[in-house]
Amino acid sequence: MRLALDAMGGDHAPAATVEGALLFAKEEPEHEVVLVGDEERLRAELGKKRARPANVSLRHASEVVAMDESATRSMRQKRDSSLKVSFELVKAGEAAGLVSAGHSGAVMAGALWVLGRIDGVERPAFAALFPALRGEGRCVLLDAGANVEARPSQLAQFAVMGEAYARRVLGVEKPRVGLLSNGEEESKGTALTREALALLKRSHLDFRGYVEGKDIFSGEVEVVVTDGFTGNVVLKTSEGTAMAVAALIRSAVEKAGVSEKLGALLLGPTFAGLKKVVDYAEYGGAPLLGVDGVTIVAHGRSSSKAIKNALGAALHTVRADLKEELRAAVSRAKAWVPARSGARR
Amino acid sequence: MRLALDAMGGDHAPAATVEGALLFAKEEPEHEVVLVGDEERLRAELGKKRARPANVSLRHASEVVAMDESATRSMRQKRDSSLKVSFELVKAGEAAGLVSAGHSGAVMAGALWVLGRIDGVERPAFAALFPALRGEGRCVLLDAGANVEARPSQLAQFAVMGEAYARRVLGVEKPRVGLLSNGEEESKGTALTREALALLKRSHLDFRGYVEGKDIFSGEVEVVVTDGFTGNVVLKTSEGTAMAVAALIRSAVEKAGVSEKLGALLLGPTFAGLKKVVDYAEYGGAPLLGVDGVTIVAHGRSSSKAIKNALGAALHTVRADLKEELRAAVSRAKAWVPARSGARR
Repeated sequence: MRLALDAMGGDHAPAATVEGALLFAKEEPEHEVVLVGDEERLRAELGKKRARPANVSLRHASEVVAMDESATRSMRQKRDSSLKVSFELVKAGEAAGLVSAGHSGAVMAGALWVLGRIDGVERPAFAALFPALRGEGRCVLLDAGANVEARPSQLAQFAVMGEAYARRVLGVEKPRVGLLSNGEEESKGTALTREALALLKRSHLDFRGYVEGKDIFSGEVEVVVTDGFTGNVVLKTSEGTAMAVAALIRSAVEKAGVSEKLGALLLGPTFAGLKKVVDYAEYGGAPLLGVDGVTIVAHGRSSSKAIKNALGAALHTVRADLKEELRAAVSRAKAWVPARSGARR
Repeated sequence: MRLALDAMGGDHAPAATVEGALLFAKEEPEHEVVLVGDEERLRAELGKKRARPANVSLRHASEVVAMDESATRSMRQKRDSSLKVSFELVKAGEAAGLVSAGHSGAVMAGALWVLGRIDGVERPAFAALFPALRGEGRCVLLDAGANVEARPSQLAQFAVMGEAYARRVLGVEKPRVGLLSNGEEESKGTALTREALALLKRSHLDFRGYVEGKDIFSGEVEVVVTDGFTGNVVLKTSEGTAMAVAALIRSAVEKAGVSEKLGALLLGPTFAGLKKVVDYAEYGGAPLLGVDGVTIVAHGRSSSKAIKNALGAALHTVRADLKEELRAAVSRAKAWVPARSGARR
């Protein structure tokens, strides 16, 4: 299988992307990575590593989408960007999927522009993975930020897509689905969540009603559904909390006045535990569900290990044959989700 | 000064409330606590502690608001609830402020019903405190859940009230204010946040524009403004993340196979750091800003130490003479916040 990597996307590109591709190529010798981007810079980067395995190739693209660009304008105006060319490789069947650590809005725009949506999908959604303490050990939250506003019917579709993803990609036999709200009682929530709640209660999913922010980690459900604004806030808040915890632990250990050696011993398992919570290197990127082609968005600050894992996630997602499953699931859901129903909020 | 404590509110009431009141009474011998609730049960609880300091008194109330009751109905129907009687003590001037670890929706309803709003305030808001890693070391987030939906003019008022709180109660000389969004660029956000952004840019506050979930902990701003739905999700997500981090660290230490003694040594400073992030015992409760009387909501799971600290927060807030400051700040803001402007979302 061949995967396209937007080698110019991300804060540490192209060094981290090239190194990540090399790590992946070594671990998965039967698969290929196409590095898409400025050929000269990519060659220089490969030269530094003194490595050019047979399963890593280059595809030149002369432009780069900057992080502060308008997402849709970048797709219209930069026809030879590394991101757009990556999408075109997938569209043409030259790559089975792509990974980008670049501008996530541009990834969404490019996916819609070049690949299009799977039949019946109203809006694609980013699916973010969180570790859960009990149950299946994983929880998928969507939408993690692809859309700012949503209709009730779109939240219902996010539930359907997230459930299919948890089943096919995470291997959860019967995923339980929750709708994020400000309390578990049905009287809680906004007009948007209450309308989505009514739809989901009629669904064929194992729907557990409203859940709260803490339930993302509790293992009560494997799928948490929310709008992209709230999903993005959840993602950034959990990242901020974990970073704050790390910093406060470090300062507590320092204040305890222990030796450097004991300090390291103290911090080792602590950070091993902590990393699991918000470790983009381990979880490796959020799939954009609902577009017609495997698209994985890695964190902008992705390290080479994060890129390697995002390529692994792309491989895993392609193998799961998710597209057909999503199409079938969305089609089945037509029985209880009226198309484009309810107001956008 | 005399403070009212809803002694029947909270998961561990009345044991934790009575014990918390005794701890407070011992630490603050010149102030008084009125325990409001079922006199017989409270006497029994005090009997167990074999303590009845002169600065702790009882006020009988025959009813209790249950956690799953309708907030407004509980105020209408339970005229002799411990919560309602606590508010009445404040209204009558017999107490300078109150603390409740009960039903937060009922606290909001009771505050509006019995105390009313400060002149010019559209909606009160819960203010939650977070630790910040740099800067002033504290960040106040509001609304943490008093209102599910908000108008742009209400978000603008939350900013004004949060700024006044940070100045008067936290002692921050010139608090910086941010509006929570899904990215820092002005093109981000929802219709609600974009309208609030436009209002706040015209304000006299030190307004820093959009901030993200991680900035609550970063020390970039001292006040973060959001609607009550998102604020509640932030609060619960950070709580869930911190609990997940704690559990994962514990399991990493156990897996490391160290002795019990070294394990305890490893976990000690770790949990000391962790507790600071989401420790209701330390931060002690969220003030309900904008109502005409000091009202502090403690976490439903409050321990006796959390109750003691919430009483301390009430004392501190009364001393800060926040009401006059809030009234003046809201009045000053009329120059740039049109009353009840923008749609509720």
